[in-house]
Amino acid sequence: MKVTVMKFGGTSVADPEKIQRAAERAVAERRRGYAVVVVVSAPGEMTDELISLAERITPAPDDRELDQLVTTGEQVGIALFAMACRARGAPAVSLTGPQAGIDAVGEPGRAQIRRIRTRAILKHLKEGRIVVVAGFQGLLPSGDAATLGRGGSDLTAVALASALKAGRCEIFSDVKGVYTADPRVVHDARKLSRISFEEMLELAGAGAQVMQARSMEVAERFGVEIHVRSAFRPTAGTLIVAREDLMLERAFVSSLALDKSEVRLTIVGVPDQPGVAASVLSALAEDDIPVDMIIQSAPSHAGRNDISFMTPKACAAKAKKALEGAAKRLRAERVDLREAVAKVSAVGTGFRHSPKIAATMFKTLAEHKINIHMISASDLRVSCIVDLAHGESALRALHKAYGLGKGKR
Amino acid sequence: MKVTVMKFGGTSVADPEKIQRAAERAVAERRRGYAVVVVVSAPGEMTDELISLAERITPAPDDRELDQLVTTGEQVGIALFAMACRARGAPAVSLTGPQAGIDAVGEPGRAQIRRIRTRAILKHLKEGRIVVVAGFQGLLPSGDAATLGRGGSDLTAVALASALKAGRCEIFSDVKGVYTADPRVVHDARKLSRISFEEMLELAGAGAQVMQARSMEVAERFGVEIHVRSAFRPTAGTLIVAREDLMLERAFVSSLALDKSEVRLTIVGVPDQPGVAASVLSALAEDDIPVDMIIQSAPSHAGRNDISFMTPKACAAKAKKALEGAAKRLRAERVDLREAVAKVSAVGTGFRHSPKIAATMFKTLAEHKINIHMISASDLRVSCIVDLAHGESALRALHKAYGLGKGKR
Repeated sequence: MKVTVMKFGGTSVADPEKIQRAAERAVAERRRGYAVVVVVSAPGEMTDELISLAERITPAPDDRELDQLVTTGEQVGIALFAMACRARGAPAVSLTGPQAGIDAVGEPGRAQIRRIRTRAILKHLKEGRIVVVAGFQGLLPSGDAATLGRGGSDLTAVALASALKAGRCEIFSDVKGVYTADPRVVHDARKLSRISFEEMLELAGAGAQVMQARSMEVAERFGVEIHVRSAFRPTAGTLIVAREDLMLERAFVSSLALDKSEVRLTIVGVPDQPGVAASVLSALAEDDIPVDMIIQSAPSHAGRNDISFMTPKACAAKAKKALEGAAKRLRAERVDLREAVAKVSAVGTGFRHSPKIAATMFKTLAEHKINIHMISASDLRVSCIVDLAHGESALRALHKAYGLGKGKR
Repeated sequence: MKVTVMKFGGTSVADPEKIQRAAERAVAERRRGYAVVVVVSAPGEMTDELISLAERITPAPDDRELDQLVTTGEQVGIALFAMACRARGAPAVSLTGPQAGIDAVGEPGRAQIRRIRTRAILKHLKEGRIVVVAGFQGLLPSGDAATLGRGGSDLTAVALASALKAGRCEIFSDVKGVYTADPRVVHDARKLSRISFEEMLELAGAGAQVMQARSMEVAERFGVEIHVRSAFRPTAGTLIVAREDLMLERAFVSSLALDKSEVRLTIVGVPDQPGVAASVLSALAEDDIPVDMIIQSAPSHAGRNDISFMTPKACAAKAKKALEGAAKRLRAERVDLREAVAKVSAVGTGFRHSPKIAATMFKTLAEHKINIHMISASDLRVSCIVDLAHGESALRALHKAYGLGKGKR
């Protein structure tokens, strides 16, 4: 039995007409002789609508009850999807996460998949049915259904593909694939036919919205090949494959990312003593605040440092509070929050051996008189923080400088 | 532990503000020292909206998938309700039908409650929580959640009240109680403080929309006292109690009902032979068509009869077809369908011993020049079929003739 896992995101099943089109693709895949497992997200804005209903009840809804509420979104999606398959003459059955044997652990709202008991799915597949599984949810040991947190539907698809030894996991959405840069900003951005897991991980970290890092990690670990493609066009998208499959011989940049979702925080004038940076970061870790690009300035006047980092906008207030506590304890001068910043990143391979790639970035930004606030670099990524107002022009300039435009490679 | 079961219908939880008000009542009941079980329907029009989504997918959705879809409506209701209780400082937990231990048998879309495993509910009650249960659904042996069919949320409430030995089952809705007649038609209609199960059963059969017969039968069998009351006003509604509790000494009419939801079908000129009526009714029974008020005319010319009966509008086409088949087999003359009819009924007690009650109905209608097409009568009910155009004036005239108006009794 050759299994294909097909995942349709919320925009791909936003209304009954789109569900019909998506179901048509699943039925066609079954006709080609595959055993088909479909993973469906909540249609359109349903999850947000449910959350806003909850917010009209209480500003701080209980996590367990919030999951009891939002898991209905995917359940609506799978039932409609299964109906659409059946209306096309293909036997189909919808399964919620718990019905599909997706066991989870952890807390409601951010559970993790522990294992997948594939018996129910395999039984239906063997009997010839398209199995339509609710993404983003699993069964906790308590007997409650819980959501898996951000990117959960992709994760469901990848985990199912791994458990069912599917040849491929197709991720359908409103994007046509992975691009050399956001095509809404860079007009000659080009769709990549292949990219490696590692680069995708870096892109996710650089703020590209294609797929969550968590799903990519699972796909890489279990060797699941992912095909990111459009739900609305028949053309091929981008294959995400292991790095060795790319047969690399030289360093290159595959894609750029622009991230406007973070703010910069700086704690100014901390004493230049061992353990100070650790103390600052512990204060943030205690409050579960994600940080990126931590930079400590060289000690200046009177043996004092500045420590800067980036954090998601949503965490800015919480991070500032935690940092102000740390500033008081450490007798630092003050805490600065800068909101109007953007992170522009180049992602690729072999950067360590080719300083030219980072150099091209700094040179290009300088030529365009774009000031760089912070820099971070790894073998796979170079990122610069610039003023928010310069983000898009920086992206366009770099796209040209790296020769990523259409017909260039 | 003194348990109260409180059921809130769809209009009582139609939006977050209404859910807040309903939750306030549940929390107040808990504060009075009761263990509180709340049964919640799907908010507002949600069930209809989900069904219309399904209809945009396919005109004939699969029953199992339709249940997978519509059970989400109640799940949204219970999650929001539990949040609202918690926001008021009362611990609360929502349970779907399956989570609440409501075991069902039968087919999706029209399952029946087989038993209630009360362990989960009792555990939460003992730990002080308000338990919010999804109405209208149970767990089939297949592991699927299924809906219970019409009136299912009331049935869930009554069955829970019975299983938990609750002192009372309160049914909250947008009506203030049981009235002597529909207050929208009869302006001095009076709210009854008490009525018997038997009378309520007759009222349901007579087309009054207060509660489904199925719930009433279960309540009577298991001795569950029901309190039908307004979700939006604090005043008492109507208690539905066993007949012996009413201490009746004389015959009286408690309430009138007007039903415009049925049509009359007549098979004209069937041979006056034994077994003919049975053959006609079997043809209808085979197609699951409900019939009411079957009347066979006295044999007229050439030893031929007419057989008339009432059936719900929704079944009219199917019934006419079945009847035309029977007419052909029996060599009857033709089948007549009359749509513009209404059934006006008086419900009460002791009618058998007081022919005056039926006589008053016929006399009153005659005085108002309202023609009677069909009559049926039992110890608890007298019903007349009249022209649809006369339905409301008949109701008003009878309300006055029986002295049911405000301040009259």
